[in-house]
Amino acid sequence: MKGELFILSSPAGGGKTTISNLLIKEIPNLKRVITCTTRNPRPGEKNGVDYYFLSKQEFELRIKKGEFLEYAIVHGNYYGTPKKEVEEELSRGYDLLLVIDVQGMRQLKKNKKDIITIFLIPPSIDELKKRMEKRGDPEIEIKKRIETAKKEIPAWREYDYIVLNDEIQKAKDNIKHIILSQRLKTSRFNLGAIKDPELKRLMGL
Amino acid sequence: MKGELFILSSPAGGGKTTISNLLIKEIPNLKRVITCTTRNPRPGEKNGVDYYFLSKQEFELRIKKGEFLEYAIVHGNYYGTPKKEVEEELSRGYDLLLVIDVQGMRQLKKNKKDIITIFLIPPSIDELKKRMEKRGDPEIEIKKRIETAKKEIPAWREYDYIVLNDEIQKAKDNIKHIILSQRLKTSRFNLGAIKDPELKRLMGL
Repeated sequence: MKGELFILSSPAGGGKTTISNLLIKEIPNLKRVITCTTRNPRPGEKNGVDYYFLSKQEFELRIKKGEFLEYAIVHGNYYGTPKKEVEEELSRGYDLLLVIDVQGMRQLKKNKKDIITIFLIPPSIDELKKRMEKRGDPEIEIKKRIETAKKEIPAWREYDYIVLNDEIQKAKDNIKHIILSQRLKTSRFNLGAIKDPELKRLMGL
Repeated sequence: MKGELFILSSPAGGGKTTISNLLIKEIPNLKRVITCTTRNPRPGEKNGVDYYFLSKQEFELRIKKGEFLEYAIVHGNYYGTPKKEVEEELSRGYDLLLVIDVQGMRQLKKNKKDIITIFLIPPSIDELKKRMEKRGDPEIEIKKRIETAKKEIPAWREYDYIVLNDEIQKAKDNIKHIILSQRLKTSRFNLGAIKDPELKRLMGL
């Protein structure tokens, strides 16, 4: 049975990275989509784990070949979601979690209809600021990101689900409900779960 | 915000009563729909708690008045789901859990489009038998109920969700995912959860 592609967006400082790491750890058969970028790796970041780090030339070649589900330029660097990896993992039955911004979600929706979109919302703009300050983002970056957040938040209605992140564990559990409930849809029922021959016959399997 | 009506069906011995009791205890703002019947109360059963116990005359009057979302005769007794109570509780924002059989689900679907249906499936027919024996059902009843189960199981594809009950806690948690994920849908977002005036303005609330 094919997996589902879950899109998680939130403003910078909204908690999407922390929460997606927790989800990947807790939910079996859920994988994070590794996206591509032309920006330089930060200390500790690994190619193929955090991102696929590509040269500008390589990235532009892949754009030409139509190898991205969506891509964008952010602060002068390319970011993109590789089509082939996503389709392959979904076909293998994995659910995928893709953390992208509002623009990315919009672009992706055009190229792929069957996605499930989740918007993670902070309890307040002040809380966003505090979180960025706490993790040591430079003041000029914080200002820029708050401005971006203010442009992104009105898009919440375009998402299938909205999760308030006033408490990390609660927000994580709520996204877990969304992901796990999809697996229980009749259309996605794991036929292998039924071992009893009589029951199988009755179910028409 | 209006609540959702969740329909839970399973063959006799499938675990629907145990699981629905656990769900009602664990999930805030989820209530069980109390249905009406003309059968006699069993020892310990209370009017307005287990069922609304009605006379045959009263039940038939209510049928005439169109006061049931669905009703049926089972082993010579009427059983029915009262329309008014359901609509009132949903309007008050409660989610409702209604345990009915396949026939009831089909009839209800005709009268009410916006329901979410869940089929609870046992791991095997033998397991059904064992559970009924364990709780002391008379042998003749067990036979009859297994025959009914065999007629009901093929209907699983008509439901929105299917949950395997090979382990009560797991099955309960799975139904919990289904119920709680509905509350996170953008269309059902609890606007009162946002207190920050700036965020409210950005969200267009």
